[in-house]
Amino acid sequence: MPDPKPPIALRAADCPPRRRPSVYPPGVFARHAAALAGREKRPLGEHFGLTRFGVNLTRLAPGAISALRHAHARQDEFIYVLAGTPTLVTDAGETLLEPGMCAGFAAGSGDAHQLINRSAADVLYLEVGDRTPGDRVTYPDDDLAAEITDAGWRFTRADGTAY
Amino acid sequence: MPDPKPPIALRAADCPPRRRPSVYPPGVFARHAAALAGREKRPLGEHFGLTRFGVNLTRLAPGAISALRHAHARQDEFIYVLAGTPTLVTDAGETLLEPGMCAGFAAGSGDAHQLINRSAADVLYLEVGDRTPGDRVTYPDDDLAAEITDAGWRFTRADGTAY
Repeated sequence: MPDPKPPIALRAADCPPRRRPSVYPPGVFARHAAALAGREKRPLGEHFGLTRFGVNLTRLAPGAISALRHAHARQDEFIYVLAGTPTLVTDAGETLLEPGMCAGFAAGSGDAHQLINRSAADVLYLEVGDRTPGDRVTYPDDDLAAEITDAGWRFTRADGTAY
Repeated sequence: MPDPKPPIALRAADCPPRRRPSVYPPGVFARHAAALAGREKRPLGEHFGLTRFGVNLTRLAPGAISALRHAHARQDEFIYVLAGTPTLVTDAGETLLEPGMCAGFAAGSGDAHQLINRSAADVLYLEVGDRTPGDRVTYPDDDLAAEITDAGWRFTRADGTAY
């Protein structure tokens, strides 16, 4: 939530991490719990009252993943690596990234993506995603789909049936 | 423009700088030409086909400015400092930033902002801005206003009359 009077600037690393570790259904979360436990997201944009897009400073401990591999129907995503060497997984396979590298995931491309930290050191990156309404997310490696609703993300099995 | 087949990832510093130095009217540009000449923007998101928001890797040489001080009516902006010590100018005055610091400029706040590199070393930062239609920009320190049209930005004097 924006402060009544937003700050002029912030040290990103001082912004509090998101408390909720994941919005995945419990059964799905349980299968990836160890990899998701090493993921720490610090939302940055909301401190300034930004609503059009979100920006997170995200840290992946060794072994951690950014998310389940997924593709957005309507929202663009972008990442910029600040430290460490994450492995980007897409339909094309694995690509090792390093600081100063960036990648973008266009809405509707159908190509699902995920970052995995296969290294022994922390990975730190910025991630940007917009807030276009009516987004849907597909997860080709899991029996999972999601759509955004007024109440937040609603998850189903890939075929649309309830968990 | 997106490639027919977008790259998986890019080194941001290898992306080509934007050729057009500025869209300001010639008379306004001339008054700030020296400070704008030291600004180099490398668009990143478009290489991946992103359309919902833009991301630039921007370098400010000593003495350079990010833009004329301005405020957006409908588009959010966000910056993250990668290197150097830019000075952020807002209605509240000047704030010295350093690497790892970020700032956001919410649509419609009315608080105009600008980065100035008052140091002797280059400044490098990421800037994100969304593409919400119908944006208008005000420039409190210059006799200038702008609105986005289908043909691009249309600049007028602050009172709306033509240059």
